[in-house]
Order: sequence, then structure tokens, then C-alpha cells
Amino acid sequence: MSVDAGQVKELREKTGAGIMDCKKALTEASGDLQKAVDYLRQKGLSVAAKKVGRSTDEGVIGSYVHMGGKIGVLIEVNCETDFVAKNPDFQAIVKDLAMQVAAPPVPLFVGREDVPKELLDKEREILAQQAREAKKPENVIDKIVTGKLEKYYSEVCLLEQSFIRDEDLKIKDLLTQKISAFGENITIKRFVRFQVGEKT
Amino acid sequence: MSVDAGQVKELREKTGAGIMDCKKALTEASGDLQKAVDYLRQKGLSVAAKKVGRSTDEGVIGSYVHMGGKIGVLIEVNCETDFVAKNPDFQAIVKDLAMQVAAPPVPLFVGREDVPKELLDKEREILAQQAREAKKPENVIDKIVTGKLEKYYSEVCLLEQSFIRDEDLKIKDLLTQKISAFGENITIKRFVRFQVGEKT
Repeated sequence: MSVDAGQVKELREKTGAGIMDCKKALTEASGDLQKAVDYLRQKGLSVAAKKVGRSTDEGVIGSYVHMGGKIGVLIEVNCETDFVAKNPDFQAIVKDLAMQVAAPPVPLFVGREDVPKELLDKEREILAQQAREAKKPENVIDKIVTGKLEKYYSEVCLLEQSFIRDEDLKIKDLLTQKISAFGENITIKRFVRFQVGEKT
Repeated sequence: MSVDAGQVKELREKTGAGIMDCKKALTEASGDLQKAVDYLRQKGLSVAAKKVGRSTDEGVIGSYVHMGGKIGVLIEVNCETDFVAKNPDFQAIVKDLAMQVAAPPVPLFVGREDVPKELLDKEREILAQQAREAKKPENVIDKIVTGKLEKYYSEVCLLEQSFIRDEDLKIKDLLTQKISAFGENITIKRFVRFQVGEKT
């Protein structure tokens, strides 16, 4: 099959992989961009796949204060070098991420592995109870709970949320794009969100 | 004795008490300003004394990012009404307090009652050990430890720190002044400080 040049360009931007690898991936994936991304990841050919896991000791602290000081966010986003940390494009991402944390749904954790087991067990229990009350057959309850847990993650975990500037992009995919673009691993280390009057 | 008009003015600014009360306090204190402040506090005549303890559900979240994004602070300062929260002078104090948290010595707690007992016991033990190693007599060690603990508090507790804009003023005294000035209770609820690369 012939490979669309626009798709090659898009795939390169998304993964940072070489032209020939992108063409091969798109051929293997019959022109399906997401499948091509997965193919490159599996082959370890995307720049992002090679960068993830590298230590990130540099970075930027970003802040965002909203609603005349009623909501405030502080976030630490890390990269590998001070050179990237000083890049205005990197700093713009940090600002966007701070805004993301300020906006609903309010994230409570960075990634799904940060949700405490206790909280997860409780959530699971509530979801199972709801399914039973809705008279769902016992043999599908596990599946329903797993599905709803995904929704829960997509609300409370920053990496699983849809990006406020592009609903189709998850934050973790945004990071992958930026890892490709900057050629460095990028991680979100931590954030806090204060709202005036909230119980603590 | 005759009372100095400048002192009356200073005392009024500091406590918000009435002119006659300030004159009486300065007479009782033989012109010693700090004693006059204490006198007004004891008598419950300072505005600040009357305001402290009142609930503070309004306020402002302030942020301060320093050193090109290497250090960031988020702080919540509360007051009683949104009217005061919107006052630019109040917001300037919040900004100053955020800067204070960013600067060394880095505060870890709001007030001395926020220092965990465990940490305090450990600090006490270290200080006693140091005093013993310096061959101090056993009967004065308690006194030495208490004195050094005060120094510890003045470093790790924001309220006990010297204000970055006026070394002679503790943060808690700055708040007292502002409580008088605004006629509302003002409290520091919480703060966080992020520094890129620090262990967490």
C-alpha cells in the first residue's frame, strides 16, 4: 500500500521516530495512526519509548492562581537538563498543566499507581454495590467495576485526564509528544491545589 | 507623666485601640511601647485581641515562583470577609508571606503547635546531647534546651520567623498589626514549598 505523506509527518511529530520507521509502521498498521504508534512503541523505535525511564532531576515549578485568588496550584514538572527547563515551550507546558490541575474535574493524584490501595478498594466496593442495586447479573459485575474504575482514573489522575486544550489528548499522551519533541524524558513529579475555604 | 503623641500614634497603629486607652497604657507602662501593647492585650482593649479566634473562611491563595522556576510556594491566608480578601493591601501581605516561605531559613510549619511531637522530642534529645558533650552542668541542661528550642521554632515556624521586610518584626506580630489595621482576624492556614530536585 502507499503511505500518506501527511500521516508520516504526524507520526514523526508524535513519536520522533525516523521517516523509514514511520513508513514501515504505517504500512504494518494499514494506515491506522494509533496502531502505528503502538507498533513503534513495541519495536522501541519511538524516541519517547527510549527516553521514558531516564532520570529527570531538572525542571520547573509552575504556579497558577485562579478566580482572584480563590484557587491556587503549584506543580513540579521535571526534565533531564536545565537547557530544556529554560525553554519557553517547556515552561508553557508547565503553565498549561498548572491550569489543568486548577480546572474541574480536580485531579488528586499524578498517575493511577499513586491512588492508595485503600481508596481503590473502597471505590471498587461502592461500584460493585451500585451494580448490584441496578440488578446487574453477578457474572458481569467485575467487568462493570473495571470499566467504571477506568472512568474514575480518568477523573482523579492527572495523567489520565483529557487535556484542557485538546479533549482528544490525554495528559500522558501530551507528555509522550513532548518527550519526542524535546528528546528528553519529562515527568510530572507532584502538584498541590488549594481552594479557599475547603476543609483540610 | 506626659505621654508622647508619636508613641500614642504608633501604639494605635499596632493595636487598633482607642486614643484614651493608648494614653493610659503608655502611662502604666512608663512609656515602654512593648509593655503598653501587653497591657492592652491583657485588658482585651486591643482590636487584635478581640479579633483573634474569630473564624476565617475567606481569604486568598498566593503563589511565588523564584529563581526561574527552581523554587515555588503556594500559601493560603484567611480573613473573615471577601471584602478584605479583595483589598490590594491584604493581597500584598499574602505575596510577602509567599516570598517569606521561599527564602531561607525555610519554614516547615505554620506555628509552633504544628511541629509534630515526635520531631520535637528528637530535637530536644539532640540539643540535650550537645549540651552534655559541651560539659554543661546537668542542672542547667533543661534551660539550655528550652532556649535552643526557641531558636529552632524561630527557624522552622513561619509565625516565629523574622519578617523578610523588617528583621525586628516577627510574622505573628505582623499579623497582629494587620488584624488591627483591617479589623478582622487573619490567619495563615497552610503553605507548601517545592524546590526542583529535592528529595520527597
